[in-house]
Amino acid sequence: MIDILIREIEAKMNPSVVGLDPTLELIPKSLLEENLQIYQDPLEGVGESFWKFNCEIIDAIHSVVPAVKLQIAMYEKFGIEGLKAYIKTIKYAKEKGLVCIGDIKRGDISSTAAAYAGHLGDVNVGDHIIDPWNEDCITVNPYFGTDGIMPFVEKCKVTKKGIFVLVKTSNPSGKEIQDLQVGDNKVYEIVADYVCQWGGEVVGESGYSRVAAVVGATHKEEGESLRKRMPGVFFLVPGYGAQGGTAEFVKGFFDGDKRGVIVNSSRGVIGAYKENHRFRWDQFGEAALEAAVAMRNDLREAIYE
Amino acid sequence: MIDILIREIEAKMNPSVVGLDPTLELIPKSLLEENLQIYQDPLEGVGESFWKFNCEIIDAIHSVVPAVKLQIAMYEKFGIEGLKAYIKTIKYAKEKGLVCIGDIKRGDISSTAAAYAGHLGDVNVGDHIIDPWNEDCITVNPYFGTDGIMPFVEKCKVTKKGIFVLVKTSNPSGKEIQDLQVGDNKVYEIVADYVCQWGGEVVGESGYSRVAAVVGATHKEEGESLRKRMPGVFFLVPGYGAQGGTAEFVKGFFDGDKRGVIVNSSRGVIGAYKENHRFRWDQFGEAALEAAVAMRNDLREAIYE
Repeated sequence: MIDILIREIEAKMNPSVVGLDPTLELIPKSLLEENLQIYQDPLEGVGESFWKFNCEIIDAIHSVVPAVKLQIAMYEKFGIEGLKAYIKTIKYAKEKGLVCIGDIKRGDISSTAAAYAGHLGDVNVGDHIIDPWNEDCITVNPYFGTDGIMPFVEKCKVTKKGIFVLVKTSNPSGKEIQDLQVGDNKVYEIVADYVCQWGGEVVGESGYSRVAAVVGATHKEEGESLRKRMPGVFFLVPGYGAQGGTAEFVKGFFDGDKRGVIVNSSRGVIGAYKENHRFRWDQFGEAALEAAVAMRNDLREAIYE
Repeated sequence: MIDILIREIEAKMNPSVVGLDPTLELIPKSLLEENLQIYQDPLEGVGESFWKFNCEIIDAIHSVVPAVKLQIAMYEKFGIEGLKAYIKTIKYAKEKGLVCIGDIKRGDISSTAAAYAGHLGDVNVGDHIIDPWNEDCITVNPYFGTDGIMPFVEKCKVTKKGIFVLVKTSNPSGKEIQDLQVGDNKVYEIVADYVCQWGGEVVGESGYSRVAAVVGATHKEEGESLRKRMPGVFFLVPGYGAQGGTAEFVKGFFDGDKRGVIVNSSRGVIGAYKENHRFRWDQFGEAALEAAVAMRNDLREAIYE
């Protein structure tokens, strides 16, 4: 799936991914109120609002971006109805040719990690083999070490999907644990070395492993240094835009051949209509497209030119 | 909620929690097959099987144990239908007077952590305040540092629920990250100090904080040392039984007044009917009760006598 992601990035000349992370504050008030009136259950009204919002964003952006990333927390907050919108959105985005990253950051001991690996499909029930969530790739947490990661890697071998392991997160206090100094290395550098090790056996045709890494756009020097430390490891880079990362920041995260990275923006794209008074509330799709194109061009200029 | 948990432990003289972590291998084959025949959707058949299995376990054990812990991965593996069984089980267990710990191990950057905090209730939609998941306490992952934890702590202040932060996990490879040496301390000890700090403002009447810790039963010395390091922090201790922890191992995790700990066993209780030929497959509830009582007595003997 990392191979397909790389192919789509190159086809669209766009190393960016749009985060479909709806909140009650980000979606248009009129859309929400309409659905809260239609559905008796407020959670159902929220789920339906998120679904309709996402559909319009996907319709607007699918021809210019290679992938979408769904932050499952935004859906999970609203229980079963939120998660139904998550699953429906993934199905729809895939029909529109987008690679879908489930930003789920799961992690646990081995037997439990094997259950979470159901997010990567190949769930057996009797004679059925089922993919209940249908993501193409997911994010995972490394705090449990090797035995908490290998069940995901094994599942990747079967289903050809991919995982992004948290290495250096984009938030300010990530450093409290991740930057602790262990001899000559920091904790996140040791995690980086494990990521290389975990992914050694699942390298795709692109030369990149199905075991990829999350490296925040907000850490310029660390990302550049991780690029050298992690050959053949693809980076998912959150934190562009609203969190402060720029194209100039992430330029050095790319490999010499301008591959190896996909940069995420969520609020900056899906909430663009709120920041720009040229757009009415019902033009959030058009505003998202304009923001997605601006981001693509910004990255193209910094990376490819 | 930690206060209530402690009260229930003392009322039942039983510092243990039963893990309701069903798998297709653990639940009786006849129960599963019956439901797969009734429901056309295999995931619905699994969800219904888990729900029925859990109900019978809860009916059997609720008078002797103070709490249940649900490992959400086991349900999430089977998509929406699995999660419906998770939610129904929590509702039923609470009706039977059990404290419910959602073992969800979520963790992310601040805005996302705030969304995951929906597991602690107080989700606002229009005029409604909703608790979509209904757990009493949840487990969380510390890899993101303070800004990834405080949204949970803030929510605990409002809803009076509790969180258990992963400090030292029970699995063998947890040490790869958690035991890294940082100056005079290990990573998990630094996490332990943060847990004390995060929970400082939310101490309940029992003297224990709403911010509690996960400390694996498989690490005798580390647990004893953490007990001294973390005054006023309650421990959830997984890894008893199937993973190798014993009452003798966890004895030193308790405070001088014999409080401060709840020990979890999952497979050892809910799968007891498979290990003991005195029980038929349809006597899994009775077998679970026998195992839960044996665990209680084992802990009582080591701790209280």
